[in-house]
Amino acid sequence: MNFDSQKKAEDRCYFDWAATSVYEDAGGDAPLGNPSSQHCEGRAAKFALEDARARCAAVLNVPPDTLYFTSGGTESNCIALFSNLLRKGQGRVISSPAEHSSIREGMEILERMGKPTGRIAVDSSGRVTAQTFAKALAQYGDVRFAAVMSVNNETGSITDMASLRDVIRKNSGAPVHLHCDMVQAAGKINIDIPLWEIDSASISAHKIGGPRGIGLLYLRRPVDVICTGGGQERRIRGGTENIRGAAALASCLEKHAAAEKIQSEYPAAKARWKKLITSLAAIERCSIIPAERNNDEFSPYILQAAFKGIPGEVTARALDDLGFAVSTGSACSSSSPERPVLVSMGIEEHLRIEGIRISQGWTTTDTEINLLLAAIAEVLRFL
Amino acid sequence: MNFDSQKKAEDRCYFDWAATSVYEDAGGDAPLGNPSSQHCEGRAAKFALEDARARCAAVLNVPPDTLYFTSGGTESNCIALFSNLLRKGQGRVISSPAEHSSIREGMEILERMGKPTGRIAVDSSGRVTAQTFAKALAQYGDVRFAAVMSVNNETGSITDMASLRDVIRKNSGAPVHLHCDMVQAAGKINIDIPLWEIDSASISAHKIGGPRGIGLLYLRRPVDVICTGGGQERRIRGGTENIRGAAALASCLEKHAAAEKIQSEYPAAKARWKKLITSLAAIERCSIIPAERNNDEFSPYILQAAFKGIPGEVTARALDDLGFAVSTGSACSSSSPERPVLVSMGIEEHLRIEGIRISQGWTTTDTEINLLLAAIAEVLRFL
Repeated sequence: MNFDSQKKAEDRCYFDWAATSVYEDAGGDAPLGNPSSQHCEGRAAKFALEDARARCAAVLNVPPDTLYFTSGGTESNCIALFSNLLRKGQGRVISSPAEHSSIREGMEILERMGKPTGRIAVDSSGRVTAQTFAKALAQYGDVRFAAVMSVNNETGSITDMASLRDVIRKNSGAPVHLHCDMVQAAGKINIDIPLWEIDSASISAHKIGGPRGIGLLYLRRPVDVICTGGGQERRIRGGTENIRGAAALASCLEKHAAAEKIQSEYPAAKARWKKLITSLAAIERCSIIPAERNNDEFSPYILQAAFKGIPGEVTARALDDLGFAVSTGSACSSSSPERPVLVSMGIEEHLRIEGIRISQGWTTTDTEINLLLAAIAEVLRFL
Repeated sequence: MNFDSQKKAEDRCYFDWAATSVYEDAGGDAPLGNPSSQHCEGRAAKFALEDARARCAAVLNVPPDTLYFTSGGTESNCIALFSNLLRKGQGRVISSPAEHSSIREGMEILERMGKPTGRIAVDSSGRVTAQTFAKALAQYGDVRFAAVMSVNNETGSITDMASLRDVIRKNSGAPVHLHCDMVQAAGKINIDIPLWEIDSASISAHKIGGPRGIGLLYLRRPVDVICTGGGQERRIRGGTENIRGAAALASCLEKHAAAEKIQSEYPAAKARWKKLITSLAAIERCSIIPAERNNDEFSPYILQAAFKGIPGEVTARALDDLGFAVSTGSACSSSSPERPVLVSMGIEEHLRIEGIRISQGWTTTDTEINLLLAAIAEVLRFL
């Protein structure tokens, strides 16, 4: 491993794209000024920032003034979630236990601060369904905000966001703000904010080839936020704007998340993934998690698999020694060994312990899939 | 103005370093992995992150585990300030009306959320003094947290942080957490966290030659935070770590904020500034703000000046047309034309309207100072 390089060493196969993608775009040069300054340098900076916003808006098919640059997916999720602390009127905030840790931990903070919260059940894939969502709305009766991720970061299961919107439409209570964590969806599956009619959404640049420290928050309507700073990003996100990051994010969205890019990249990714899944399923000691799956309802970029009798940590380390980077779950949950997302899906304890997450990206090749399968066979021979 | 370049065009003189500095360091290549991942790429990323932290710690003369990477000065201020929402026990949060907008606006949010807040008066330079600080502590009696900036971002006045610590030491009440916004101090004046015995501090990379989107939070002891995300940065700041930014920040601190760098750069900066101030003071229509000043108590990087009969906005625009970037105050407050910091200092209305902020950096030359003075003379001839 070359410690100094963004590029993976030639002899390594990287299968942890869901943690962070191979780095592709730094946003090039950015103007010197602070976009809030009125002078020539400031105006150039402002121009570059708004150009980046317009490019993101074009890819996402939303008005530019509904997009706000943040420092990443976690901050985007937090801005949306914690706006509930300032919202007038009561009302419950609900989410599923299979959400990203930024939402799960945020829910605990909301509770600690006295905000009523609640839980949406997930199916065995970690997916919120129209049924579990309708049940949660009916059970609580006072829901005003629901956070549901589009693609689960542990299993790749896709939630049908449009079906949740339909449930809200039929709900007799107050309007429910539907927030969607799109971090594992953007650049991987078709995301359609207008069709899904979501109220807010989060996107992270470093999951789609961009730098760390830049993300997007979509807000159908502005919300109240805790940290307004200097009122940048129309009072949604304080702090001097990261223009270079914004430009990089725009480029990455154009390269990977535009509908035509998904259409062109998806079939190959799906074919590679089908091969991996079929080959793994043929291994006696291997369980795909969840076992029952319709591949069309899963992102072809993330897979959870368990190998009987070997803790996931050991499998991951053995593969690492052979030159393969896989993980034992969301990097953002690595501080918590309990794997709460798998618990919420009702996955048996031994599978939770044995589970590893394999995730691919747009540069992953058939050869790499074959090498990974050979490496797994090697590991199983000795462990 | 070259829209595509970080460098200022050859024919421009940049005097708005307090808004953002000339860009110097992007942090070079950074390892591919997510530092929370256990594989080789993740370990390399973790190594790079901790290396950056250790380098920052060496410059700041604090233990590495008291430093947390954030997205910038605004976020660092917000994490410290909003920890008060989760702190057990009651107690008041106070700050001065001359603070950066991230603190000023944060105080309003705290109030809105029911947290008792209070105000520390400032002198005519925007500086909190031992006297005004002691008075605030005595007046409220229940202060638990005080936010005071080291160098004021409008006038450059330096607050004697050690004297505030002495006041706290003599205070009979509960311990007071002293937070220091060092954004305009780092790389400009000697900052001495151990000597000042502050409890938390904020630093921003883009003010000292680094990229946007990365900053530091110093915390003597960990605090509870609202947005823990995936528990990164030891549960102080969630979100995948921006290693490239962290490395750039470390380099910038080494280049500009280390004590020996300040010692070597300070005299030249001070000489340039003295020349500017003396020359401006000789202009009949010019008022330095504040009028009474001991230059040793001001950063030699920021100056506020007013020209009789010309709104600051007009002066700034006229100078911009002549090739000089100056501002009419903090870029982060540009959305608010009232100039609340100058109001809090008791500056007369016409001076507030007429004021412009001139700020220099380490590449500013004597020639540029002369050119600026000539340009100001030119502007005064016609306006």
